[in-house]
Amino acid sequence: METVRVALEARSYPVHIGAGAIDTEAFYRPHLRAGRVAVVTNPVVAPLYLERVKAALARAGAAPAIEILVEDGEQAKNWTALERVFDGLLAARMGRDGILVALGGGVVGDLAGFAAAVYQRGIPFIQVPTTLLAQVDSSVGGKTAVNHARGKNMIGAFHQPAAVIADVGTLATLPERELRAGIAEVIKHGFALDAALVAWLEENMARLLARDAAALVHVVRRSCELKAQVVAADEREAGTRTLLNFGHTFGHAIEAGAGYGVWLHGEAVAAGMVMAAELSAQAGLLPAADTERLRRLLRQAGLPVAGPALAPERYLDLMAGDKKAAGGRARYIVLREIGRAALRDDLDERWVRAAIAASVDGTSAAAVQ
Amino acid sequence: METVRVALEARSYPVHIGAGAIDTEAFYRPHLRAGRVAVVTNPVVAPLYLERVKAALARAGAAPAIEILVEDGEQAKNWTALERVFDGLLAARMGRDGILVALGGGVVGDLAGFAAAVYQRGIPFIQVPTTLLAQVDSSVGGKTAVNHARGKNMIGAFHQPAAVIADVGTLATLPERELRAGIAEVIKHGFALDAALVAWLEENMARLLARDAAALVHVVRRSCELKAQVVAADEREAGTRTLLNFGHTFGHAIEAGAGYGVWLHGEAVAAGMVMAAELSAQAGLLPAADTERLRRLLRQAGLPVAGPALAPERYLDLMAGDKKAAGGRARYIVLREIGRAALRDDLDERWVRAAIAASVDGTSAAAVQ
Repeated sequence: METVRVALEARSYPVHIGAGAIDTEAFYRPHLRAGRVAVVTNPVVAPLYLERVKAALARAGAAPAIEILVEDGEQAKNWTALERVFDGLLAARMGRDGILVALGGGVVGDLAGFAAAVYQRGIPFIQVPTTLLAQVDSSVGGKTAVNHARGKNMIGAFHQPAAVIADVGTLATLPERELRAGIAEVIKHGFALDAALVAWLEENMARLLARDAAALVHVVRRSCELKAQVVAADEREAGTRTLLNFGHTFGHAIEAGAGYGVWLHGEAVAAGMVMAAELSAQAGLLPAADTERLRRLLRQAGLPVAGPALAPERYLDLMAGDKKAAGGRARYIVLREIGRAALRDDLDERWVRAAIAASVDGTSAAAVQ
Repeated sequence: METVRVALEARSYPVHIGAGAIDTEAFYRPHLRAGRVAVVTNPVVAPLYLERVKAALARAGAAPAIEILVEDGEQAKNWTALERVFDGLLAARMGRDGILVALGGGVVGDLAGFAAAVYQRGIPFIQVPTTLLAQVDSSVGGKTAVNHARGKNMIGAFHQPAAVIADVGTLATLPERELRAGIAEVIKHGFALDAALVAWLEENMARLLARDAAALVHVVRRSCELKAQVVAADEREAGTRTLLNFGHTFGHAIEAGAGYGVWLHGEAVAAGMVMAAELSAQAGLLPAADTERLRRLLRQAGLPVAGPALAPERYLDLMAGDKKAAGGRARYIVLREIGRAALRDDLDERWVRAAIAASVDGTSAAAVQ
C-alpha cells in the first residue's frame, strides 16, 4: 500500500492506494464517529464491492451501515438523486455525528460528497473510488457537485474527504471504455503539469490498458501526488488549481452539446484537450508537433481526438456559461509546453474558432483518428 | 451608524447597524467584484426596499443588478425556491466572480445564503436583513439552509456573509407579529448569555414595541455583539455556539408539529424557551422564579408561553430527528442561571416529558397567558 498525503492543515487527509485497500479496516477506523455510517453507491457497484466495504467497516468497529443506492451515470448526478440521499439519511435519523462513504465512480463521489457537504450543514465523508477516473482525479481535492440543466457541476461545494481509499483491484471489473476515460485524466495531468508522466505513458500505455497492477498504482499515485500539490497550494481554485481544468472548458461544451451521458467525461476531456492544444498552437505558444504528440497518446489510449461536429458558434455559446468565464472575459487554459499549462484571458476569439474547427469530427486532423 | 465586527480571520466581516444603512453605498462598495450583482428578495419586501438597495448599489459603482424574487414565508424555504434562484443566476450567466445580496427576513437570508454557498461551489453574499429576527440573529453567523419535509434547516452550509447591513429603519414596515417574533430571539440572547440584557428588556419592552430607533439599535447591536463573540469562538457549532440554540430543540418540534408556517420561528422559540427553562427547573438547575421571569418577559412582548397541545410523546418524536441528538443521546440546552446556558446530554427523559406537559396549551401554567 502507498499513501499520498493532501496537506490542508486541519483538513489534511491520506489517499491510500493499492490492491486490497477497500478491505483494510485500518483505513476506515480513524474516521468512525459516535454516529452512524451510510454507504452511498449504485446498483452496478453494490453487488461487486458493497459487502466487502461493509465487512471492513464492521471489522473497524462500525455499527451496521445505512445503504443508499442512487442511479448510475452522469445524468443521475442531479437534484433527484441528492434528495434520495437526504431521504435515506433522514429516514435513518443520521445525525451530525455520522459519516458518509462514497463507493463508486466520479458520479457517486461528487454526489455523495456534495450531500455530505450540506447534510445538516456538513458531515465528513470517505471516498472509495472504484473507477480509474475517480482514483486519479475526482476523489481527491474536495470538489463536489451536482449538475443543473444549464450546466455541469453548477451546484456544489468544496468539501474535502476525511480519507480516500483507492483500491486498484476494483479496476479489474471496470468496463474498457471507462478505463480509457480514466486514462484521459492521467494524460491531462501529464500534459498540464508533468512532462515525465507523459513520457512514462508513451512507454507504458499497453501495460496500463492491460490493467497491470504496478502500472495502475504508478498512475494513481503520480496523479494523486500532482493533484495534492496543486490542491494544497490553492484549495478553492482561485489560481493554479485552475490548471487542472486543462481541456475541461471545451470538454464541458462537448458533454453538454452532445447531451449528458452520451460522451463520458474523460472522453470529452480528451477531445477538449486537443482543442486546447490547438488553441495553444494558434496563439503561437505550442509547436504543432506537441499537439500531434497529444493526439498520438490519446489514440494509443483509444480515446477520441475530435469533438462532435457542431458549429464553432455552438461551442462558444456552450462555453459562455462555463465557470471559467470571469468578468465577461473568456479564460482558457493553454499549454506553453508539455507539462506547463497556463491560464490566459487575452486570446483572440478567432483562434478559439479555428482551434474548434480543427478538432471536430469531419475535419482532416480528426479524420486521421 | 454602529459597526460590530465578526472576527473570523480571512472570513471576518462587519455588521453595519443604523437607520438609513441600506442607502449607504460605502457599505456595499468594498464587496463589489468583477462580475454581476444579484439581489434575492420576495414580493413583500421588493416594493418597499428593492429600489433603494439598487440605487445604493448603483452609487457604489455596480452594474444593474439581476433581480430574483422568491415566495415569502417559511414554507418557501425549500428546493423549489432554491432552484428558482439558480435558474435566475444561470439565465443571467452569473459567474463565480459575482455576488448575491439577500434582501429580506430570515427566510430570504437563509435561502439566498445557501444558494450563494453552493452556486458554482460558492460565491460571496451580503445580508440585508429587513426583519428584527434577521437583524438580531439569522443574518449574522453564516448559518444558511433550506428545510426538508423531514426537518427544518436539514440541508445547508456554514457560509459567512461578506457584510451585514442592518437598517433599523426597515423595521417600521414590519408587521407587529413579526416584530414580536424577533424580540423572542433577543430574549433568547439575554437568557442564554447576558443577564444584563434581560434586565434591560424588562425595563424597555414598551420602547421596543413602539419601535423606538435607539431601543432597536441597542438590541440589534447587543445581540450582534453576543453572537459575534460566540461565532468567533466556535464558527461551526462544535461547542459553545450550540448555546445559541436555547429553546430551539423544543421550538423546532413546535414548528414541525404545528406545520411549517403556522407558528413563526420566533414564536416557537418563545414557547420552546419556556419548555427548556421548565426542563432546567425539573433538573434542579434553575429556580422556579426564573422560569416565571422568562414567562413574564415573553408575555410583556406578547409572545406565547406554551406550545400546541400535543402529547409529550409526539414532541419527543419530533425532537428525535433534531440536529441536537448526538450518538443517540438526546442533548438539551438548559439554564444554570439567567444568562448562563449549558449543554447537557444526561437528563432524565421523564423530566423532559414533565417540562413539555407543564408548557403546552391547556396546562395551568400556560392558561395564565
